[in-house]
Amino acid sequence: MTKKIEEKSDLTRRNLLGRAGLALGGLVSLGALQGCGDGGGTTEEPPPPPPTGPQVNEFPYQQHLPDGYAMADLPAVQEAAYHGYYAGGCCHGAYSAILAKLAADVGAPYDKLPLDFGKFGGGGIASYGSICGAVLGGVLHINMMVADATARGNMMTDLMRWYERTAFPMYSPAAVDAAETGLTLDFSQSNLVQLGVVPGTHLCHGSVTRWCSEMGVAAGGADKKARCARLTADVAGKVAEMLNAYLANAAYTPAGRDDTSNTCVACHTPATTNKPPVASGMECASCHSDKVEGHPGL
Amino acid sequence: MTKKIEEKSDLTRRNLLGRAGLALGGLVSLGALQGCGDGGGTTEEPPPPPPTGPQVNEFPYQQHLPDGYAMADLPAVQEAAYHGYYAGGCCHGAYSAILAKLAADVGAPYDKLPLDFGKFGGGGIASYGSICGAVLGGVLHINMMVADATARGNMMTDLMRWYERTAFPMYSPAAVDAAETGLTLDFSQSNLVQLGVVPGTHLCHGSVTRWCSEMGVAAGGADKKARCARLTADVAGKVAEMLNAYLANAAYTPAGRDDTSNTCVACHTPATTNKPPVASGMECASCHSDKVEGHPGL
Repeated sequence: MTKKIEEKSDLTRRNLLGRAGLALGGLVSLGALQGCGDGGGTTEEPPPPPPTGPQVNEFPYQQHLPDGYAMADLPAVQEAAYHGYYAGGCCHGAYSAILAKLAADVGAPYDKLPLDFGKFGGGGIASYGSICGAVLGGVLHINMMVADATARGNMMTDLMRWYERTAFPMYSPAAVDAAETGLTLDFSQSNLVQLGVVPGTHLCHGSVTRWCSEMGVAAGGADKKARCARLTADVAGKVAEMLNAYLANAAYTPAGRDDTSNTCVACHTPATTNKPPVASGMECASCHSDKVEGHPGL
Repeated sequence: MTKKIEEKSDLTRRNLLGRAGLALGGLVSLGALQGCGDGGGTTEEPPPPPPTGPQVNEFPYQQHLPDGYAMADLPAVQEAAYHGYYAGGCCHGAYSAILAKLAADVGAPYDKLPLDFGKFGGGGIASYGSICGAVLGGVLHINMMVADATARGNMMTDLMRWYERTAFPMYSPAAVDAAETGLTLDFSQSNLVQLGVVPGTHLCHGSVTRWCSEMGVAAGGADKKARCARLTADVAGKVAEMLNAYLANAAYTPAGRDDTSNTCVACHTPATTNKPPVASGMECASCHSDKVEGHPGL
């Protein structure tokens, strides 16, 4: 408690000093520009304050990318995401790997953002089992970059749908992380396909629980972590691919929903009132498998 | 397509001009500071560049709050969140109302963040039915402010649990939004309790579908929007309260999980391998109601 209060006071002082410095810096620069160079006394207008480059609130950030920009060397982004998982969880792995790449390639405003922002999302947000954190990290980047609102939404839903239907893990790291010890399963590249399970949901809870159940391993163990670290790399790579495709085409064609779910929402439309209206873009059968066969009234 | 390419080129030009301006501005200021004032020729070291105040990457932002800070006038934050819903969805409503309050009270770095960042989260992220967008907007603010990692995680899970168990909507707006037309239900303050339904889940899909089913209204209609606008205000108010309580006490005591779910995870621990291991902090009975009565093996 005492430490926290001290820390806060110290930081508040820093904050106040920072603000004082900002005001002083502004005055010094303006005074220097107005009073120097030609001895003063001129009637010329002082030049406008210089622009300070791309800012965080100039959003979304597609506007700050050079023409023809694409993220190159995606395996390096995936490798960073894999190691990032062990440094701060799935959301941190995916989010920080893409952010670091964009900051290195593009600079501002990406280099003004906190690299640790995504740590909250691990395990489906603070281990709650909500949306897979790697997917959430990807969604945050799609949100930050994509200027076209329709494409942005379609890319987010397609990412979640792709995740629901894809057998994870797929990525095989170039260098196994030092924290990866105590595995009971064979994660070597040649055996990885044997460990692949389709989550059937974009939620961490169902994704992790299903994989661990099928593999017969603990949800809190080393094998689960090794799976999620590789999945984090898979998702980061997919997001980077999607962003590159969008930038290359200046458009995005959505992949859309699965056929079974399309059958469901053909009756359970947002407009219906004589049967349960469904507000969802998810795969219906993930939770409502009892409705796929022997649906009431069909 | 042509418009998009033109827009991108224009923005890229702006970007390049901005960067050139930044470099030029830096040179001008430095030159002015070095060559003016005392006629030049001194051997004094030039002063270090002035600090520029709290930056976005100085994260989390509790360090930038004045001592004793609390968000005052929470009904105004709630009212802004309610109207924000009609301007850009549930996540935008909650996120932008709290951000605007913090930016007005604290300034940087909150005033350097884009107010529209939360628009992606509406309807459980791009209408996918994932995590309730208002909750996600709140989670983002908890993430941005709370310095203590344990408190941060507990606050996020408590927010999601509170949402699962709370009958929405509760908030009654001071002024009904101009976009709110065509209601079939009575949303007046005296009748609001009659419209309250406990979501039983933190996901938009279950929350909206259950409420609309119980009310007999469409998931895409005016009543659903009126409910979600008020719920957005409810969530924004709760998040502001939680942040204020954390700041006042420099600590956070978690409310914890419901008793039924605690019974479930006592056997389905993250360490178990002889029964499905559960990776979740959610309320189990929301989806697994069949397990509450007549659980296999019990």
